[in-house]
Amino acid sequence: MRITYEQERSLVKGILVAADFPEGDADTISEVISHSDFTGVYSHGLSRLTRYMKQIRAGSLNPRPNFRKVLDTGSLMVFDGDNGSGIVSVCKAYEETLARARQFGIAMSAGRHNANIGCGSYYGWRAAADNMVAILCCNTYAFTSPFGGADRLIGTNPIVVGVPAGQEYPMVLDMSTTNVAMGKIQAAEREGQTIPAEWAKDYDGNPTTDPSKAFSLSPIAAHKGYGLAVMVDVLSTMFSGASFGTDIGLFSKLEKENTGFSLIMIDPSRFMPLEEFKAEVDRYVRMMKDSRKAPGFEEIFLPGEIEYRTRERMLKEGFAVSEKLAAELTELAIALGAAGEGTDFAGLVSKFMA
Amino acid sequence: MRITYEQERSLVKGILVAADFPEGDADTISEVISHSDFTGVYSHGLSRLTRYMKQIRAGSLNPRPNFRKVLDTGSLMVFDGDNGSGIVSVCKAYEETLARARQFGIAMSAGRHNANIGCGSYYGWRAAADNMVAILCCNTYAFTSPFGGADRLIGTNPIVVGVPAGQEYPMVLDMSTTNVAMGKIQAAEREGQTIPAEWAKDYDGNPTTDPSKAFSLSPIAAHKGYGLAVMVDVLSTMFSGASFGTDIGLFSKLEKENTGFSLIMIDPSRFMPLEEFKAEVDRYVRMMKDSRKAPGFEEIFLPGEIEYRTRERMLKEGFAVSEKLAAELTELAIALGAAGEGTDFAGLVSKFMA
Repeated sequence: MRITYEQERSLVKGILVAADFPEGDADTISEVISHSDFTGVYSHGLSRLTRYMKQIRAGSLNPRPNFRKVLDTGSLMVFDGDNGSGIVSVCKAYEETLARARQFGIAMSAGRHNANIGCGSYYGWRAAADNMVAILCCNTYAFTSPFGGADRLIGTNPIVVGVPAGQEYPMVLDMSTTNVAMGKIQAAEREGQTIPAEWAKDYDGNPTTDPSKAFSLSPIAAHKGYGLAVMVDVLSTMFSGASFGTDIGLFSKLEKENTGFSLIMIDPSRFMPLEEFKAEVDRYVRMMKDSRKAPGFEEIFLPGEIEYRTRERMLKEGFAVSEKLAAELTELAIALGAAGEGTDFAGLVSKFMA
Repeated sequence: MRITYEQERSLVKGILVAADFPEGDADTISEVISHSDFTGVYSHGLSRLTRYMKQIRAGSLNPRPNFRKVLDTGSLMVFDGDNGSGIVSVCKAYEETLARARQFGIAMSAGRHNANIGCGSYYGWRAAADNMVAILCCNTYAFTSPFGGADRLIGTNPIVVGVPAGQEYPMVLDMSTTNVAMGKIQAAEREGQTIPAEWAKDYDGNPTTDPSKAFSLSPIAAHKGYGLAVMVDVLSTMFSGASFGTDIGLFSKLEKENTGFSLIMIDPSRFMPLEEFKAEVDRYVRMMKDSRKAPGFEEIFLPGEIEYRTRERMLKEGFAVSEKLAAELTELAIALGAAGEGTDFAGLVSKFMA
């Protein structure tokens, strides 16, 4: 069944409110989850709701956190997320950091005690729309090892950068520092497939092609990706006192993550008239796109461009929810008391739109 | 012949003064060049002097630039390097950015009209020694292509991050966003060797193992490294109006580079007592080093650790200058009138130490 963007927003919000999230926070999370699905990043979309509910039941995700600002020097702030959704924490930190970046030209916030921050590109899009350049780092459950090591001590540690443009699509980089996510390896295992040796290592630190033996994810570009991931750890945790390494909760035990993030925002309009900055970004984009193409390529895409185009298409076509996901969400809503026994997915969607 | 750190400093300074650099700038450059050799990064050490001299003769490197601050909002600054050494530009920008980061907690400077900035790790070391977290980006001569493209439009675009520690070595990441530098491919060509297919592509954009056909360098981690390199371009050029893509001078023609940089500095002591921050960095370092080792590894190194240790060893042992490099430098000094005809390298070194 295909659902519209508005239907997904209402569905997510309805389920989250039923799961005891305040209405405003539920709305915020629904925006980020729908962004994820409607930009083609299904791993952080509707499919995440079941996991979040499990985390709430296990006490590792607090739906009604006491989000607090614990440090404020003007251009630097620290926020404590009280183990609530990282999506809500980053969105709240974003608003304040934006205001400070407008005031000081550059500002930074750091956060601790947060669960997963969802689809990273959302924050890059938002910064671009607000005419800001933003650099966001966060750490995650530790699924990878230091270079030369075998223990799981480092997360998939993504880096997000958002840059506003004029006529062209904004540029938004959203990349993890591992070759793949653990979800991709689990999918291979479910389907009985082998995995490329570059994806993961076994418990002893040897590359493996057997997904059932995959223990730690391999960083991108060997020691370079490891070095980047270490610096994402530093930026995400050291300024706020968030957890790193063995202090991070275990995903397998649904422990509190206490992961951190940092958000640096720079106001380009303090350097030159905004239109001038955006025109230069446009010129950059066009210069790259006009390059001679390598064999097998018909077009060059700038970071984020594919997601912007995907969203344009999907806003028209809607998001095709698989039968499996539809059943999972319907069951979830019924279990939460948000829908009566026997409700089907179509009924659920129209109920929440009402 | 082995030379001491002090001998290298004097040698470099002497040659640069003979090449018309002001004494203070020559001293600054000698510090960064010697740092490079004494941390084992020979590509940016003494071996670069001949290239810099060629650039001066071609008019693409200005030894007596009018370095100017062209924008100052308090926590944001822009500097114009007047096509002087990027080493001098970044060092001068560094001093001012450090002062502003101490004042505001976070500060940023951007630079344009610079030649090569030398060994990136130097700035990370310096920030760590100054108890600052620094993020430095710069763009370079364009030697790589956008993902899916065949034209050379993007530099090797390094990222440097420096982080102070307490008892442990500071952490300093200094990584380019390509798999290798062009110099490594040229070395393979000189020695008649083939190169791995991941290093470079030919003029048409096909991977090549023939170093003589290598036209563009391949980014690390395919589209991820490309995305990172684009964002380094943005951070290095857009705030200052430095050149990018086809606007950058051609290295082969020794044209003016007009590359840019950006330096973000964050004062950790504004977040918590400095000793507390450093203790957490130490704890991070030890946690990584204590990891179980993967097969073939006896020790885990944090970013920059190998260079810190190399320097400790080389400060005792000295830097072994190859006969070829010694002859090249002696010839250079004689051509500049800094030494008489018939001077040998040992004589040159002792002359400059006098």
